[in-house]
Amino acid sequence: MIQSYNSTLLDNAVEHLSKLPGIGGKTALRLALFLLREEEATAVGLGESLIAMRRNIKYCKRCHNISENEECELCSNPRRDASTICVVESVKDVLTIESTREFHGLYHVLGGVISPLDGISPSDLEIDSLVERVEKEDIKEIILALNPTIEGDTTNFYIFRRLADSGVKISILARGISIGNELEYTDELTLGRSILNRVPFGSK
Amino acid sequence: MIQSYNSTLLDNAVEHLSKLPGIGGKTALRLALFLLREEEATAVGLGESLIAMRRNIKYCKRCHNISENEECELCSNPRRDASTICVVESVKDVLTIESTREFHGLYHVLGGVISPLDGISPSDLEIDSLVERVEKEDIKEIILALNPTIEGDTTNFYIFRRLADSGVKISILARGISIGNELEYTDELTLGRSILNRVPFGSK
Repeated sequence: MIQSYNSTLLDNAVEHLSKLPGIGGKTALRLALFLLREEEATAVGLGESLIAMRRNIKYCKRCHNISENEECELCSNPRRDASTICVVESVKDVLTIESTREFHGLYHVLGGVISPLDGISPSDLEIDSLVERVEKEDIKEIILALNPTIEGDTTNFYIFRRLADSGVKISILARGISIGNELEYTDELTLGRSILNRVPFGSK
Repeated sequence: MIQSYNSTLLDNAVEHLSKLPGIGGKTALRLALFLLREEEATAVGLGESLIAMRRNIKYCKRCHNISENEECELCSNPRRDASTICVVESVKDVLTIESTREFHGLYHVLGGVISPLDGISPSDLEIDSLVERVEKEDIKEIILALNPTIEGDTTNFYIFRRLADSGVKISILARGISIGNELEYTDELTLGRSILNRVPFGSK
């Protein structure tokens, strides 16, 4: 419940701010009062940038990443390897993988993972368009880079089945102990898998 | 520095969001991507409520609290005791003191405290208007409820000097151990003062 602050304008702003994830009523009030103290341009600039972003942002028609144009910068970059597609859940995962600088192919953003509990079925995701890309484009490898959750694994398996007859190589991110972590604090499942999937010493 | 996300619209929204206190680049991106996933009305409603608030909010001409009208609900409420004024730093402190339900007088919002380091002098605050209220209104007591900081104490002393000849009673919030706290974790200054200012057992 939102406390009333003697001003419907303030109440309204606090109510909208507290809809943001991780922002409760107290933080929302603190943010609203900050915007009241600052110059008018701060609040107006913030408000206008949010409205403009939501109304005008485009999505790449090929990989469904956010984009300035019909096709995103990555898809239209001739120096990227168009024969490898990394399948991710969300726009944010593209940024995360780009930050590693280890992947030079293209992406395909599913827009989520299959989750019957949340009512998300394969048809709600960009899976058909992925299958279509595999059929039409000259693709050699699909890298599944979904989050290592039950829903992610379900989606991996569903995509694997859909692409089984396509002849394209399908791989998945290596799972194992995190670099810098201690064995003592690694969960048994991950540690067990990292033993099963051990690699020759000296490989990258 | 703000990372670039392949879209000036997103970059712009993230940059504006990260100007908010306590919101860094990563959180700003998370909030922006949340607004992109949600319905358009969520982002537009938030943006418009912030702009409307900043452009149209009024301040009470008497106590400088935020208000819907020329005079705020508290100042225009005949059931409040107009002979007692509680002096606070900010609009938020009014809400905090109101939530105790122990104060039934009116307020006076200074808009800050004297702080030479931040370039805030008495003339930047609503101190002249407080002196004016003491002269014109029928006021019996001024309660100083500024934060217990060096700047707050400086401001308390400045106001005390300005009102010394007015004949009005000037009091300050009691300082002592917090209810529910343990002595072991109370700082020496507070504990020492609470011994000096001990009150007869059984008083409220």
